[in-house]
Amino acid sequence: MGEGFGAYRLGRDAELLDYVSSANIACGFHAGDPATMRSTVQLCLRKGVAIGAHPGLPDLQGFGRREMAITPSEAYELTLYQLGALQAFVHAEGGRLQHVKPHGALYHMAAKRHDLAAAIAAATLSVSAELTLFGPPGSELLRAGAAAGLRTASEAFADRSYQRDGSLTPRDQPGALLASAADAAAQVIRLVREGKVLSPEGEELSLRADTICLHGDGEHAVEFARDIRALLDSSGIAVMALG
Amino acid sequence: MGEGFGAYRLGRDAELLDYVSSANIACGFHAGDPATMRSTVQLCLRKGVAIGAHPGLPDLQGFGRREMAITPSEAYELTLYQLGALQAFVHAEGGRLQHVKPHGALYHMAAKRHDLAAAIAAATLSVSAELTLFGPPGSELLRAGAAAGLRTASEAFADRSYQRDGSLTPRDQPGALLASAADAAAQVIRLVREGKVLSPEGEELSLRADTICLHGDGEHAVEFARDIRALLDSSGIAVMALG
Amino acid sequence: MGEGFGAYRLGRDAELLDYVSSANIACGFHAGDPATMRSTVQLCLRKGVAIGAHPGLPDLQGFGRREMAITPSEAYELTLYQLGALQAFVHAEGGRLQHVKPHGALYHMAAKRHDLAAAIAAATLSVSAELTLFGPPGSELLRAGAAAGLRTASEAFADRSYQRDGSLTPRDQPGALLASAADAAAQVIRLVREGKVLSPEGEELSLRADTICLHGDGEHAVEFARDIRALLDSSGIAVMALG
Amino acid sequence: MGEGFGAYRLGRDAELLDYVSSANIACGFHAGDPATMRSTVQLCLRKGVAIGAHPGLPDLQGFGRREMAITPSEAYELTLYQLGALQAFVHAEGGRLQHVKPHGALYHMAAKRHDLAAAIAAATLSVSAELTLFGPPGSELLRAGAAAGLRTASEAFADRSYQRDGSLTPRDQPGALLASAADAAAQVIRLVREGKVLSPEGEELSLRADTICLHGDGEHAVEFARDIRALLDSSGIAVMALG
Repeated sequence: MGEGFGAYRLGRDAELLDYVSSANIACGFHAGDPATMRSTVQLCLRKGVAIGAHPGLPDLQGFGRREMAITPSEAYELTLYQLGALQAFVHAEGGRLQHVKPHGALYHMAAKRHDLAAAIAAATLSVSAELTLFGPPGSELLRAGAAAGLRTASEAFADRSYQRDGSLTPRDQPGALLASAADAAAQVIRLVREGKVLSPEGEELSLRADTICLHGDGEHAVEFARDIRALLDSSGIAVMALG
Repeated sequence: MGEGFGAYRLGRDAELLDYVSSANIACGFHAGDPATMRSTVQLCLRKGVAIGAHPGLPDLQGFGRREMAITPSEAYELTLYQLGALQAFVHAEGGRLQHVKPHGALYHMAAKRHDLAAAIAAATLSVSAELTLFGPPGSELLRAGAAAGLRTASEAFADRSYQRDGSLTPRDQPGALLASAADAAAQVIRLVREGKVLSPEGEELSLRADTICLHGDGEHAVEFARDIRALLDSSGIAVMALG
Repeated sequence: MGEGFGAYRLGRDAELLDYVSSANIACGFHAGDPATMRSTVQLCLRKGVAIGAHPGLPDLQGFGRREMAITPSEAYELTLYQLGALQAFVHAEGGRLQHVKPHGALYHMAAKRHDLAAAIAAATLSVSAELTLFGPPGSELLRAGAAAGLRTASEAFADRSYQRDGSLTPRDQPGALLASAADAAAQVIRLVREGKVLSPEGEELSLRADTICLHGDGEHAVEFARDIRALLDSSGIAVMALG
Repeated sequence: MGEGFGAYRLGRDAELLDYVSSANIACGFHAGDPATMRSTVQLCLRKGVAIGAHPGLPDLQGFGRREMAITPSEAYELTLYQLGALQAFVHAEGGRLQHVKPHGALYHMAAKRHDLAAAIAAATLSVSAELTLFGPPGSELLRAGAAAGLRTASEAFADRSYQRDGSLTPRDQPGALLASAADAAAQVIRLVREGKVLSPEGEELSLRADTICLHGDGEHAVEFARDIRALLDSSGIAVMALG
C-alpha cells in the first residue's frame, strides 16, 4: 500500500482495503513519500485495517527489487529510519503500528541471511517490543524476530505456489502463479484448515501461515482480492488482523 | 550536525560538540542519512548534548538552501516524516528529542509565512507536546509554535549582525558577519545580560535570545566555537540546554 | 512523454504518439529514467515523431512543478546535463534531437526571467545550433533563444484559454480549460488560420503559434488528442514536425 | 575526479590534476552533479588532462560501492545516460571525451560478468567509436570492449598489490596496499619497463598496464601522486594521455 511517489500512483489502495485486515505501507525508500504515507495511514484507520511498515532498499528506480550489497548496520539503520518515519504518521493520526514486513529484495535477502534478519529485528525492537515481524515460513527473519523476543508471523502468499522444500516456485517456472482467485482461495482455505499447500506437482506439504499476503499492484489485484475474500467469507473463514 | 551523506563528511561534529549544549541533527532530506543520524545521535548522548531535529527541504543537491514552492501540507508531511525518522534513532539510543529547528530555506520561509510555520508547528506537536520549536526572534515560527501550545525558543546567531528592525544583516552587506570570536562572544554576552545587540551602525536594539546558534560548517567553526565558549565561561555565563 | 520512473507509468505514450508530430521526452530529473528514455526514443523513431528534450527541475517528488530558487548557472548546468543524456539515447538509436522545451516550473520561471531563459538558451546552443527552443508566445525563452541565434517556436496550448494580455487563464479561474476536443480543435484551427484566439470573455487576440502543445497526462489525453487530430485532418490542416 | 555533490567536496582535484595525464570524472549517479561536472571538465581542459567518463551505479548513499543486481539492459542504459551527460559538458567546453572507466561496484561487476561488460561496451560504442574502454588486466570489460571494436586500455593500480593469478590482493589481507609512494613508483616503473609486478610473496607475474590508476580520495592522495610522478619523471618515464 502507499507505493505511489509524487505524481505517480500505483495500485488501487482504497478499494483493496475493503478486502484485507492488515496493510503494509511503503516508507519512502523503495516507494512512498510523506504525502502518500499520510493519506494511506488515514485510509487504513478509516477502514479499520491494521497498519504495518513496509521498509525497502534505497532504490526508488528499481522499486527496491534489486538486491544490493548492504551491510547489517545499513540494514538496521535504513529499517529504523523508515519505521520511525511511518510511525510518526500513524501516531499523528491516532493509530498504532502493528507489524513490520520488509519489502522486495530486502525481504528476500533477510529471509536467507541471518545477519540482515537480526539487524531488521533489532531495528523493529528498537521501535517497539509490541511489533510483530513478518517473514516467510521457516525464514531467518522469523528466527531473528523470535530470538529478539518479538512476536512473529509466518506469511504465505495467496497467489504463489510452493515447492516441495517449502520455497516459492520461481516466477519463471510453470505453475509459479495461481491463475485464478478460486485456486488462490482454495490454497488459503487449505492453509488455514490443514496448514498445508499443494505443490505444482500435487504433493502436499506443511506450511505455517499466520498471515496471507495479497499483492496490491497487478492489473486485477482488486478483483482478485474481492473474489478471494468472498470465497473465504462463504467458507466461514474469518479475516482479521493479528491482534 | 550530522550533515554528511554517504561517503561525504561535513563539519567536525565530534569536536564541536565539546562547546555546545544543544545540537540540530539533519534528518536525511537536505543532508544526513540513516548511518550518519545514528552515529551523530550516539555522539550527542555520549557528550551530554541535547538533541534537536533539523528537518530540511527535499533537496540534497542544493543542501536545502534553495527556496521551493511547497504547500503547507507538504511542509507538514516532510517535517513529520523527518522528525519521526530522527526520533526513532534517539529513542533507540535511549535519548529524548528536545527541540525542532527547521533548516535553511525551510527555516527562512517558515519564519516569514504563517501557513508554513503553522504546518511545521502542527507536525512538531504531532510528535510530542514536549518539544520546543526554535525560530528567529519575532518570527511566524515562534508565533505558530506558541499558538499550537508548544514551548518556543527565540534563536539568535552568534556571528551575524542584526539590523535596526531586528532582521539579520544580509550576507552581501558590510558588517553582516562578525569577524572574530571576541566580537561574537561580546554579542552573546550583551544578548544574555541586556537582551540587546548592536547594529552595524552602532545602534542598540532589543532582541530576545533563548538560544544561540553556532554554525557547524565553515573552515574555522570549531575554533570559533571553542573561543566563544571560553569567553562565555570566563564571563560567568553558563551554557546549558533548554530543559 | 516518457514521464514514468522505475516501476511507475504515466500516460499512454504509445497511443498518443499516433496523433502528434513532435514529442517532449522527460530527461530524468522531474521524471523519466534511463530505461524509459530509451524506450520512448525508440517509440518516437518508430512512429516518425520528432524528438524534443523536456528538461526539468531536480524534484521528482514534486514532478518538477514546484518553483525552486535556482541560479542561472544551475539552470544552465541542469539543462545541459539532461540534454546530453537524452541526446545520447537519440543518437544511439539513429535519431536526431529536434527541439528543447523546458518542463513545468522551469518552463514557467524561464518564460518570465531573462537570466534563466538565457541560461537555458546557452545550454541548448552548447548542444547544437540546430536545435529549436520552445517557449510561450512573447516569453523571455523565445527572446533568449533568438538572441542566442537559435531557431525558436512559439508554443500555444490546445486546451487552455488565453487572457486579453496573451497569458494563460490561471487554472483556478472559470474557462481556464477548454472542456471539449471540439473547442480545443476550434482554438487550434483559429490559431493556424488567423493567428488568433478568443479569450473566455469572447475577445479576439493575436497569438503566434508555431507549435501546439497537448498534455500527455490526464485521464482522457489520448481520446482528446485523437479527436483534435481528426478535426484538424478533416479541416485540411496538416500536422507535421517543425523541420 | 568531480566526486563532490552539492555542498559536498571530495578530494583535492585541482592539485591532483598537476600530476596525472587522464582523469575519470563522476557523472552524477554514484557522485558528481551538473555543477561539479562542469567545473571539473573546465579544470581538466585548463590543465591539459585527458577526460574520461566515470559512470557508476545509481547509489549516491553508497557512493556506488555496493553491488546491485542490475540487468544488462540497465547497465547499458545507465552508462549511456551518464556518458551523454558528461559528453555534453565536455563538448560545451570545447573538449573531447577520451575514455570510459566504470566506477566502483559497476567496474568490479563488469570485470567479472560478460553480459554487463558487453552492455557497457555497447553503450560506449553508441556514444563514439573513438572512445577507449578501461578495465582490469584480463577482464571481461577489456574482452567486451575489444569484441565491440573499441580501443581498450588495461589498467593497473599504482598502490595495490597483485596476487599470483593477476587479481588484486583483497584489501583485508596483508600487503594489499603499497605503503609508500616509493613502493608504488617502483611498481609502476616495473610495469612500464618489464610488464611485470611482484606479488606480496615476491613472485614476479606478467601484467599488462596501458594506464595506471591513482585514487583521488584518501587523505594523502595529492602527496602520493606528486611523489610517484616525481619518481617517474626522474626515471625518464613520460606520463602522457592515451592518444
